[in-house]
Amino acid sequence: MSHTKKTRTTVDIYGKTYTIIGDENVHHTRLVASIVDDKMNEIHQANKSLDTTRLAVLTAVNTVNDYLKLKDDYDLLLKKIEEKEDL
Amino acid sequence: MSHTKKTRTTVDIYGKTYTIIGDENVHHTRLVASIVDDKMNEIHQANKSLDTTRLAVLTAVNTVNDYLKLKDDYDLLLKKIEEKEDL
Repeated sequence: MSHTKKTRTTVDIYGKTYTIIGDENVHHTRLVASIVDDKMNEIHQANKSLDTTRLAVLTAVNTVNDYLKLKDDYDLLLKKIEEKEDL
Repeated sequence: MSHTKKTRTTVDIYGKTYTIIGDENVHHTRLVASIVDDKMNEIHQANKSLDTTRLAVLTAVNTVNDYLKLKDDYDLLLKKIEEKEDL
């Protein structure tokens, strides 16, 4: 565990209040919360019958999917750099 | 919108069944679902009083946070490649 100072940030996501404790600054945590809120609203617009739990789970599913795609791109880029350095 | 064939995959995440429709193959979608399920269990272990909706929202918050960190790393790497190419 790190011993850096933790920040506590209160944010609203999809009508509920959350206190997020972490290493990130308040500005960053608010940005993350607003992205989650936007994504939940977006999925709600596409499928209005989903309850809040399902909306949040599907938001997490979408984001993990985006993460894995970006990770593939990142690894490709890293390989490209390593190949260049080998020349 | 793309016209590629969509796959439908049924997955279990934190005790509920979801049908995920997307461009990804079944194997990939199951991997994504298992990552979300693991994260929800992890957050539940750290804070057992959270209800499922809050757990799901905090899982989404964590995944978006991880995504943004990786995006920063990706952008740094891209900048590094561009600088090398300018030499």
